[in-house]
Amino acid sequence: MKDKSFLMIPGPTPVPESVLLEIAKHPIGHRSSEFSSILEEVYENLKYVFQTKNDVFMYTSSGTGAMCAALENLVNEGDKVLSLIIGNFGNRWAKIAASRGANVEKIEVAPGEVIDPTVLKKRLDEDINKEIKIVTLTHSETSTGAANDIKTLCSIIKAHGAISVVDGVTSVCAMPCKPDEWGIDVLISGSQKGFMIPPGLAFLTASERAWKVYEQCKHPSFYFDWAAHKKSVQANSTPFTPAVNLISGLNVALRMIKKEGIDNVNARHKKHAMALRKALKAMNMTLLVENDENASYAITSIVPPQGITVPDIRKSLKEDYDIVVANGQNQLKDKIFRMGTLGFVCDRDLIASVGALEAVMHKLGHKFNLGDGVKTLIEELNK
Amino acid sequence: MKDKSFLMIPGPTPVPESVLLEIAKHPIGHRSSEFSSILEEVYENLKYVFQTKNDVFMYTSSGTGAMCAALENLVNEGDKVLSLIIGNFGNRWAKIAASRGANVEKIEVAPGEVIDPTVLKKRLDEDINKEIKIVTLTHSETSTGAANDIKTLCSIIKAHGAISVVDGVTSVCAMPCKPDEWGIDVLISGSQKGFMIPPGLAFLTASERAWKVYEQCKHPSFYFDWAAHKKSVQANSTPFTPAVNLISGLNVALRMIKKEGIDNVNARHKKHAMALRKALKAMNMTLLVENDENASYAITSIVPPQGITVPDIRKSLKEDYDIVVANGQNQLKDKIFRMGTLGFVCDRDLIASVGALEAVMHKLGHKFNLGDGVKTLIEELNK
Repeated sequence: MKDKSFLMIPGPTPVPESVLLEIAKHPIGHRSSEFSSILEEVYENLKYVFQTKNDVFMYTSSGTGAMCAALENLVNEGDKVLSLIIGNFGNRWAKIAASRGANVEKIEVAPGEVIDPTVLKKRLDEDINKEIKIVTLTHSETSTGAANDIKTLCSIIKAHGAISVVDGVTSVCAMPCKPDEWGIDVLISGSQKGFMIPPGLAFLTASERAWKVYEQCKHPSFYFDWAAHKKSVQANSTPFTPAVNLISGLNVALRMIKKEGIDNVNARHKKHAMALRKALKAMNMTLLVENDENASYAITSIVPPQGITVPDIRKSLKEDYDIVVANGQNQLKDKIFRMGTLGFVCDRDLIASVGALEAVMHKLGHKFNLGDGVKTLIEELNK
Repeated sequence: MKDKSFLMIPGPTPVPESVLLEIAKHPIGHRSSEFSSILEEVYENLKYVFQTKNDVFMYTSSGTGAMCAALENLVNEGDKVLSLIIGNFGNRWAKIAASRGANVEKIEVAPGEVIDPTVLKKRLDEDINKEIKIVTLTHSETSTGAANDIKTLCSIIKAHGAISVVDGVTSVCAMPCKPDEWGIDVLISGSQKGFMIPPGLAFLTASERAWKVYEQCKHPSFYFDWAAHKKSVQANSTPFTPAVNLISGLNVALRMIKKEGIDNVNARHKKHAMALRKALKAMNMTLLVENDENASYAITSIVPPQGITVPDIRKSLKEDYDIVVANGQNQLKDKIFRMGTLGFVCDRDLIASVGALEAVMHKLGHKFNLGDGVKTLIEELNK
């Protein structure tokens, strides 16, 4: 049905009507006192959502822009960077580091798996000369739906002395993520994810230890420069003309998150993801991430049953039920499909999605007891 | 009056209602066939507006992002860059080049003045060893309202063999700007200017000669990388999650520009800027750019009469008439104010603005015949 499409993908995610209407207003001047007031509130609330006492910088860019904002302000040519890779986006860190002339070493696992802290510890223990300057890692890997134990991994990195650089694109808001408490040095995220606004803004926060490395950076990025952004945050301003309308929308969305409470927002995501996983299992579906402990609260990847293709499932969900789910990326294309439970998602959305998926899988000939998915989902949601 | 504010600044500029409503729609998936169709049309129409047969890349960023996209894909450490500076934004080119380790030489003129082609020719003629690799320059200087003769300057640069890198942030759409015909190597612009949409997108197009220099760039930008964007343009896609809603709005705005015709859009801007200049002179106001030949069609800078301050003028325009004009930047702060005639501006807007300015100047005690501003404006608009 035209105009009835519902995104069940890991981004862009659904946007509240009040945010859309805010975005639709005539732009105001980015150097006006009105906009400065909006920025003041946004910067304050970003610190709340990022659970940090440090400034949170806002970039007019894709999430990848914030990834560049991290490494392009830290890496000098020849620096040793260790990239912990559990999927596509972990690999992007390695590519960005290499683009700045870093000497990149990778620890990589199979899709759906996560980094074993003992493997990381062993590698860092071997680095007795402290050659590894930066370790990049992913909290919630958008391409697989696996989630690393960031708290443990970052404590190991901190003990070694390297700087941890964490992709929180689909974890901030969705999963507990506490940079100050856990010793994450650089944490980035993007607007079209847990922040409930359309794509176009990205965020970064950096620890005091990371700032020391920034100060040694020979050619920090001009557009993403930390010092320029810090100065602007402190003046309730931005270094360059920002995406004014998206920021006005973000202000409304951040108020909603603050009102719900970040712990409650995290808990809602956990409840949704875990209930979805149980419901899928009740439908005899295979999950790419086997263990709940390693599962993202934002994305769930499903391996289709033998004889039923990902394109058929996606096509039927879209055409019959106006629900969009994501295909796998790169080598996972047509091997998995991904359902997002990220951002502005309510219990009704999950009931609709699981119900529609039941109808589609039933039509495509998958063997399961029709009704068991929604039944299990409702039981889990009401626990 | 609340919600009645009208922006008469050089960006953000007024946005058509149809564009705002498009932007307010629920985001669609950036990898969907629907969005791919939008991108196909947008990329085609950007080539029309930029008057080039080459691809036009679209970045989710501020205009400054596109400036970085130009130099960060061309400059290697130690390269010689000549920056022609007629204001704040010309100076930004020099800063970005320096941030990449370039050896920057500047030719700088007083605010309101433009680059004398004979001065440029003399300098480039002296460069017999062809050490100067890149020349940066500004078409319409947003901080002063002066406009360079880009056609002549770029032909001199081309004859020398250097690459010309042009800031067209407030010129593309507003002024004739023909990269292929005039031999401009790299041309950039931003969305919140002549493109009639809110800030958040920026554009770049590069000549074959520029691509040869790109191929020698040791560490091209990852986020702004030309090759990645070229590949995406050809696949009606984007390398990273783009500002989906802004692009949908841009599609509507580009259709409007195409329907009006780019030459007619240029002519409208010229008529508005020149009529405004005549009207201001009829009000005994002093223009920063004295000669019409050197004036931007997008911005007009006005030096207030002795005894009347810029803050008083801006305050009264805003409080009494809900019109926002821009202050000067940096050393020009409180020395000039700037009126934009850029983007979605109609004759009525100009009549309202000149009339309101007459009222304000009259109230503040400026000596002129009340009514002469609007009278002259109407005569000029109807010529």
